[in-house]
Amino acid sequence: MGRYGKRADLIVHEEEPFNAETGLAALASSLTATDAFYVRGHGAVPEIDPAAWRLHVHGVVERELDLSLTTLREAFRERTETATLQCAGNRRAGLIAIRDIPGEAPWGPGATGTATWTGVALADVLALAGPLREAAHVGFEGGDLSPEAEPAERFGGSIPLAKACRPEVLLAWAMNGEPLPPVHGAPLRAVVPGYIGARSVKWLERIEVRSTPWRGYFQHVVYRLLPEDGTPGPGAGMPLGLVALNADVLSPADGETVATGPVEVLGYAFAGGERHVARVDVSLDGGVSWSQAELLDDLGRWAWRHWRITVDLAPGEHEIVVRAWDSSAATQPEDEAALWNPKGYVNNGRPRVRVRAAAA
Amino acid sequence: MGRYGKRADLIVHEEEPFNAETGLAALASSLTATDAFYVRGHGAVPEIDPAAWRLHVHGVVERELDLSLTTLREAFRERTETATLQCAGNRRAGLIAIRDIPGEAPWGPGATGTATWTGVALADVLALAGPLREAAHVGFEGGDLSPEAEPAERFGGSIPLAKACRPEVLLAWAMNGEPLPPVHGAPLRAVVPGYIGARSVKWLERIEVRSTPWRGYFQHVVYRLLPEDGTPGPGAGMPLGLVALNADVLSPADGETVATGPVEVLGYAFAGGERHVARVDVSLDGGVSWSQAELLDDLGRWAWRHWRITVDLAPGEHEIVVRAWDSSAATQPEDEAALWNPKGYVNNGRPRVRVRAAAA
Repeated sequence: MGRYGKRADLIVHEEEPFNAETGLAALASSLTATDAFYVRGHGAVPEIDPAAWRLHVHGVVERELDLSLTTLREAFRERTETATLQCAGNRRAGLIAIRDIPGEAPWGPGATGTATWTGVALADVLALAGPLREAAHVGFEGGDLSPEAEPAERFGGSIPLAKACRPEVLLAWAMNGEPLPPVHGAPLRAVVPGYIGARSVKWLERIEVRSTPWRGYFQHVVYRLLPEDGTPGPGAGMPLGLVALNADVLSPADGETVATGPVEVLGYAFAGGERHVARVDVSLDGGVSWSQAELLDDLGRWAWRHWRITVDLAPGEHEIVVRAWDSSAATQPEDEAALWNPKGYVNNGRPRVRVRAAAA
Repeated sequence: MGRYGKRADLIVHEEEPFNAETGLAALASSLTATDAFYVRGHGAVPEIDPAAWRLHVHGVVERELDLSLTTLREAFRERTETATLQCAGNRRAGLIAIRDIPGEAPWGPGATGTATWTGVALADVLALAGPLREAAHVGFEGGDLSPEAEPAERFGGSIPLAKACRPEVLLAWAMNGEPLPPVHGAPLRAVVPGYIGARSVKWLERIEVRSTPWRGYFQHVVYRLLPEDGTPGPGAGMPLGLVALNADVLSPADGETVATGPVEVLGYAFAGGERHVARVDVSLDGGVSWSQAELLDDLGRWAWRHWRITVDLAPGEHEIVVRAWDSSAATQPEDEAALWNPKGYVNNGRPRVRVRAAAA
């Protein structure tokens, strides 16, 4: 058992703050086990006394609220959603392989996972507070102080009010049917399905209804897509929010030697936003011809989709290329190199895995 | 003046049914003039007596409705939206250049346009009808009989109930502040912002609230994305709905000779669905390096975005490549060839324009 109750097979990118991704084996399950779920932290895990903890709701609202966990549980309807969380840095390793990105963790395909989340709808809490006419964004602030910002600041971010009022956005106290572990944000975290993981703020202590987007470091300076030659700075680049269509191969592993003949290729795809995965294609000839993979368990509109296909491999070297399609019939861009950006976000280029088939 | 009150500079692909696209000059305006707006028809323009016309609303509803135009105008709040319509076959010419697509019109970049639409919210009409618990889709049927289906059938299609209940979906009787012209669906048409044009059914006569998607030819057989080697048939392929992120260059024209030195490049981009265009990049070196174009008039979340950049061209041949990004930080796929499909839908590959710069 590793730190924070995690399995030993997580790939730890950083010990303090703790940052670790899910291994390929655990990613192959439809639902990701809590002890295998990735952790993206920006500061030390705060120690919070649940009895003393309050959620403060304020800003452009009719009525400020200070809610205890007991009140949240008793005053609102409990809801459960199955949702994929995905870090904006998922698959960054592919970009780093093109050109180094100093100071950023080389996340592979495991900065994502899917769990069932239980809590109350943010919409119900907002309805009690009563957003005023100028309300347009809902900000979240956690109890974790991050030294990454200078001066250090609490992690936070906002989502548009229209999204915040949708029933799938939760304030969650449970994950996969168990109490939320401290490393995942206990006693309460936001869960914003379809948005980058950074908006699912952990250790939630403050909700601010605002007329403008969050001005804190983690939305106004980072978690923004810069052009290739851009420099991070306040307001520079495009703010991230919705997750872009993405996919990766989980098996076989890149560089693996497999037996010639039928080989099962397995992976995941995630459409993000309010879209779903409509198709996944696999090519063995560099994208000249494609075969459709089978889409596996449908966990609903907020979850990734696993896919599988059996390909027949002759002896020798092969490259497996994958492209997912979303419900708008859009597919992934081909080339990772042209997606390189200074912070290494949103690598959603078509995954490529090189394998060698050898006689068994 | 051409047929149906259209300008002579429309590019007519078919006279009967009338199919014509907007020329490059008219596409360069933020709002597309009605007399330049593209027409995609599947049958003869029906002759409808507005006084006798009724909109029949039925299916899984509490109360069937038969509404006259007068009742629609008097009983519901009038709404206006600026929205881009885009045919799923827009830019098909690029796919046909790779491999022929017999029987399908070679639409260029002009099977799209943006207008202001005035009418009532479909949501308000549905609220009066009262969708029952099993309601999940809202179907539209026009008064136009299409011989393309065998046997001939009226044009139609459906959208999810959740979309139908959004305020931007209109039943429109006016376009750009004038009564809807017959060729655009008078007396009443659906306008479904963010969806393929085929769902904005013209000459609307019947709305059917359903538990399942539309089973008619124009949704169950065509307007579906097939794999490259697929064959159209009932239920084959992926149903289209949301418009995929797309863009094209309007000036200079492909093959044009321009003067060396600064050259203005102008085009449009459209994110479709509920997304917006976040960035547009232009490359002169085949995608190795990119410059950001300026985004022009913001007409709101349901409209395309024009963009402009001035590039400096030395004497000789140049290829201008463009990629748009949507608000999920997804960009367009590089290669049109890999997007080829048997009906020629959704060509959203990065546009490429070849120009020759010559001393003035």
